[in-house]
Parts: sequence; C-alpha cells; structure tokens
Amino acid sequence: MFSYDIVAQDSETHARAGVLHTPHGDVPTPIFMPVGTKATVKGLLPSSLEEIGTKILLANTYHLSMRPGAELVAQMGGLHDFMRWDGPILTDSGGFQVFSLSEHFKLSDDGVEFHAVDYGGEKVMWTPEENMRIAQLLGADIVMQLDQCPGYPSPRPFVERAVELSSKWAERCWKAHTREDQALFGIVQGGMDLDLRLRSLRHLEECGNFPGYGIGGYSVGEDHATMFESLAPLVSEHMPKGKPRYLMGVGNPTTLVRGVACGIDMFDCVLPTRTARMGTAFSNEGRLNLKNTRFRQDQRTLDEGCTCPACSAGFTRAYIHHLVRQREMSGSILLSLHNIHYLLDLMRRAREAIVAGTYGSFVRDWESSPAVNDY
Amino acid sequence: MFSYDIVAQDSETHARAGVLHTPHGDVPTPIFMPVGTKATVKGLLPSSLEEIGTKILLANTYHLSMRPGAELVAQMGGLHDFMRWDGPILTDSGGFQVFSLSEHFKLSDDGVEFHAVDYGGEKVMWTPEENMRIAQLLGADIVMQLDQCPGYPSPRPFVERAVELSSKWAERCWKAHTREDQALFGIVQGGMDLDLRLRSLRHLEECGNFPGYGIGGYSVGEDHATMFESLAPLVSEHMPKGKPRYLMGVGNPTTLVRGVACGIDMFDCVLPTRTARMGTAFSNEGRLNLKNTRFRQDQRTLDEGCTCPACSAGFTRAYIHHLVRQREMSGSILLSLHNIHYLLDLMRRAREAIVAGTYGSFVRDWESSPAVNDY
Repeated sequence: MFSYDIVAQDSETHARAGVLHTPHGDVPTPIFMPVGTKATVKGLLPSSLEEIGTKILLANTYHLSMRPGAELVAQMGGLHDFMRWDGPILTDSGGFQVFSLSEHFKLSDDGVEFHAVDYGGEKVMWTPEENMRIAQLLGADIVMQLDQCPGYPSPRPFVERAVELSSKWAERCWKAHTREDQALFGIVQGGMDLDLRLRSLRHLEECGNFPGYGIGGYSVGEDHATMFESLAPLVSEHMPKGKPRYLMGVGNPTTLVRGVACGIDMFDCVLPTRTARMGTAFSNEGRLNLKNTRFRQDQRTLDEGCTCPACSAGFTRAYIHHLVRQREMSGSILLSLHNIHYLLDLMRRAREAIVAGTYGSFVRDWESSPAVNDY
Repeated sequence: MFSYDIVAQDSETHARAGVLHTPHGDVPTPIFMPVGTKATVKGLLPSSLEEIGTKILLANTYHLSMRPGAELVAQMGGLHDFMRWDGPILTDSGGFQVFSLSEHFKLSDDGVEFHAVDYGGEKVMWTPEENMRIAQLLGADIVMQLDQCPGYPSPRPFVERAVELSSKWAERCWKAHTREDQALFGIVQGGMDLDLRLRSLRHLEECGNFPGYGIGGYSVGEDHATMFESLAPLVSEHMPKGKPRYLMGVGNPTTLVRGVACGIDMFDCVLPTRTARMGTAFSNEGRLNLKNTRFRQDQRTLDEGCTCPACSAGFTRAYIHHLVRQREMSGSILLSLHNIHYLLDLMRRAREAIVAGTYGSFVRDWESSPAVNDY
C-alpha cells in the first residue's frame, strides 16, 4: 500500500524529487509536513490546510494517546475521520515527548514508564508493542518506531546506549506492527557521531525491511555546522537511495534548503505555527516580528510576491501588527497560513528546481539571500 | 447613498422583509450582524464570514479609537481596506463601552470624560463632535450617535436624564456628521418605560432626519416579558415604518424571532462568538455545552440538517469536545462558524417566511421548539 518513487535526481547536489504513494494519496517530495499535534493544526481547519497546498499532516501519538485516547479515535473511525482530513497522515512515536516532557521516566529494555505531566501526571508504561498498538489504533498512513532521542550535548556512552535501545525497540516494533495499510519507518539515532549514526542505520537494515527512515536527534541544540558534519555524509553516502528520508522536527527554511541538498525528502516542525502565535512571519527578507512598532503603518503585505491567502487577500503588516498586539486569534491564523505556505512553497520550488536540474543554483541563491540566517 | 426599502410585510405579525442599500452593497433584512470588535470577528477571517453568508459586520468605535487609532485606520484607507472586508460595516458609537468598561467617567452636557482601563487607563474626552469625527475617520457605512445607556434596573429620574442627554447628543451628532457616504442612526433610549421611549423617539424625530434608528438599553438584565412590554408597542406602533430599526446588542435566537415579529430589522451581538469560545453551540435542541462528557463519543454533527462549514464538513461533537477540552483554537473557530451561521440562517429563514406570508406560523413553530428557552 506504501511505496516511494524517485522522479528526478539533481546532478550537482544529492537532492532528489520523488513521490510517496500512500493509502490516502500521493505526496510529492521534498515536502514539509505541518504539525497537528492534538489532531488539529493550531488555528487552521483542514479546508485551509488544503487551500495552502498541504499534502500530508503530522499528528502526535503521545498527546492523542492521552486525550482523547487511541481507542476513542479508533472508535470514531480513525484519525482521518476524526479530524476530517482525508489526505495522508504521519504519526510520530511520541518518544520525543516522553523523554522531553516527562519529569520522571524509568527506562528499561522492556520499555519506558513515565508520568504524563500535561495530563494530571498519570503513570503510563510504553513498550514498543504498546506503542505500535496505539499507532495502529490511530491509523495514520505512516508511523514511526518508538525510539530514544538523546539531547545535545550528551556523553558518547549515553548516545551509544540510546542507539542500542532504539535498535532493540525498532526490532520489536517491526515484529509488532501488522497493519498493511500503514508504513512503519525506523529511526536513525546516534547524536553527532557519524559512526554511531551508521551503527544505528545498520541495525535498522538488519532488523526489518523498513519502507522509509526517520532521522532523529538533530536540531536539539547543536549549531548548523555540527549538524551537517554527520548528517550530510549519513544521508548522501550511506542511506539507501530507494527509500524516503525524513529529518524529524526540523522546520527552519535554511535547514530545509540544505537538507534537501543532502537528499532529505521529508520535514516536519511546529516552528511555522508556533512562531506565528508569537507574532512572527517568515519572509524573503528574513523573519519579521510583527509586534514591532515599525510595522504600525506598514501598508505592505507580509512578503512580496507571496501567494498565500493572507498576502493575496491584501492583509497589511499594519493590520496584522494591530491583531498581534491585540492578541486576536486572526493574527495567529493569518501568520500560520502564511508561514506554513512559505515552507510548502519553498519545497514546491525546490522540487521544481530538482526536476529542472537547477537545484545547485537554487541553493546558491538561497545562501546569498537575506533569509539565509533565518534559523 | 443609503436607503431602505420594504419588500414584504407580514399580515399576521409586524414583521417586515426589507433591503438596506449601502455604499458597500445591499443587506437583506431582517439581518443578524456579527461583531468584529477590534476590526476582526474573533477567529474568523473575512473569507469565512462571507462563506457563512455574512452581509454586514459591526465594529467598535471605542476599541478602534484607542487601538490602532482612528487616524491610523483612515490613513490605511478606512476600516473596509484595513480589515479587508468589502461589504457593509456598521460601527457603534462606543458609548456603551465608555459607560460599562470605564471605572470612572465624568459626565457633562458637553460630553464624557473617561479612563480607558483596557488601554493603560489613558484619559479620554468624548464630545458628540469628537465621536462623529472618529466615526467619519473609521468610515463605516452606518454609524451610531453617541448615547448614554442606563443599566437595569435604574431609577426613573436617572433614565430620564439619560434620555435628555442622549437627545442633546443626537442633535449635536446630527449637526457634526457630514460624510454623505455614511448613514447616521439615532438611538432610542428610555429604559423599560414606554413613555420615556416615546419621548426619546420624539426628540430624535425633531432634531434630525435620521435614516434609521437604533434601540439601545434593552437586554441589560431585565427578563423577556419586561423587555417586550415596552419594546413591542414602541416598534410596532410608534416607530416610523419607512426606516430600519436596529435592536442593539441582542443575539439570542428567541429574542431575534420575537423581535422580528415586532418589526425589528437588525440585530448584533457578541453572543455567538463569545459562547463559541466558551465551548457552546446553538442548536435546534437548545444550547449544547461541548465541554460536557456526554459528547465524548457523540458521532453526530452539531446540529442536524445544518449547512454551516463545521457541520457540512462532518466535524463531530466528539471531535469538537476534544478540541474544546484541549483549548484548541480550532474548537472556537468551528463553534464560531456554526453559531454565527445559525443566527444568519435563522434570519434568512425568517425573511423567507415573511415574504411567503407565513411568519406567524414560523413564530409558533419556534415557540413550541426545544430551542425557545435558549436565552
């Protein structure tokens, strides 16, 4: 039910254009996936997401398993029916939330026991099998294995143990996962060390025939150079060409442009909606903080030439400044539309360049633009 | 530039169907006007408002004069350009906010001095002339005179003085108002006393040729019977037939149905959006509090047969319960769409009944429906 085709390969970079085939439709890659943590992208209904060209959404297993609960979602016909999004959906494993949000967690080979602090501190035990049971109840098109994501910096032995544990869990997820209309991706961990990354990848290739790979544990505090030092060779030289590569939790424009050049196909991040709620817009001039008084009388739209619903309807920076200052929902909504559209459009244009064989100059243009420091 | 035509008159009740002609288009009456206090209806962009059939919007002079300021709005091309709503707009005078929100205000024949508590306590002096200057800068199609709205209950001498002051201010507003592309409505005050209401109306008819009348000072705490005891004869027997009547600040469905029967043409209220943000939906069963656990697994849409974007896209009560419980913006958005659509549709159906000469039975159906106690 799930497959991936490469449509074009850039000659100058490692970028490729492809198509993910899923039970709920095709997804052109490279692609940015907006995040609907609790089965809704904050402030945007599915009709708006479709309008700005969203092809696939992400939802969060941890939050949904707590509220409203995976059983309830399944009873309501699964995540697509529940949230009225008929396109492809990817659910993460929730592992990232367990390790970053929980005040206390107890790790064993068997799984992880944690207190769900956002939900009254309820005690929860997740084994890889339980995690897969939840993923299958939610019913996304693509699901991720349970993994452990170390922060940065972490001592090498700690990262090694995380790789080992994630590998064991990958194997158990692979065995426990049975839904044929759902693709299970393995996750490459290993911190900033290429050799640990390769060890993680090798484990994954040994334990199952994953139809795609997540790359976790980047963008956790390291600088850009450190990130790409191991990420670039991992992706461009070592990961299997025929399978999609998903750089998890990354959403700043410059990392997207550079990531695609390494051969990344998929990205997700709360950044466009979270920054929107803070009053910030992506633009070709770099980020704009609309709270700033300099926008009070600015009659320009957010970004010149932008075709998002906010810009094409003619909403000015002055008006959005007013909305943001007054904490009006419409401010968050307009900026969320604009920011998600910005990333979707960036990947759409990247794909066109790849197909046209001009992605090298696309990257050079980006690197010399004012938006390059936008991360 | 502004005129009002009666299209049909119901034979059994005092209801009438009409059309307001404004510089930004025609408005069929009876009509409900959604409220965009700060130049935005909370959570809904103009495109969504249009989608649910909004014909005219209300915005608030007090709030807009404080932020971003009437001069700035004028500089941005006026309210229509600023908020990107090309249809008709009505602005209230802001008097209601001055008297209800201000901790301290000092009233004189000349005007009212107040501290804008929501905006850092800034001291502001409003004369009728200043109020009209602001209204003309904002540039709505219909504007309201500055008035004083007494609460309920108020001693009769207090209400008498409010009528007297509002009458004087009406005269000064009428003289100060010069924009020909803007209709200035007078406001009938007088509390629950029919004789004071008639005195107020007579003053207004003497001091200017207002193209329409607001009716203020109802729905301020009195019960339904008390309200209609003076409102019904005022409207049906005494107000001039050829001019539109606008019952200010009223938005509960039953009062709309009964108000139309008396001959009211226009209504506005924050109720549909405010209750939406509290998690409440209008429905033909009466109000539904979606926070309630009984909706957790309810696979029905909000209201059977409803054609609003929330119901027609199939969002279930279970999903909206989840969104509301999780304080997701999308919950407020879906309920706001539904609730405003509910009132717009109620008035659309009322108008059809008036044109068909069946408004009497429309009212009887309403009075025997479970939604009748919905206020």
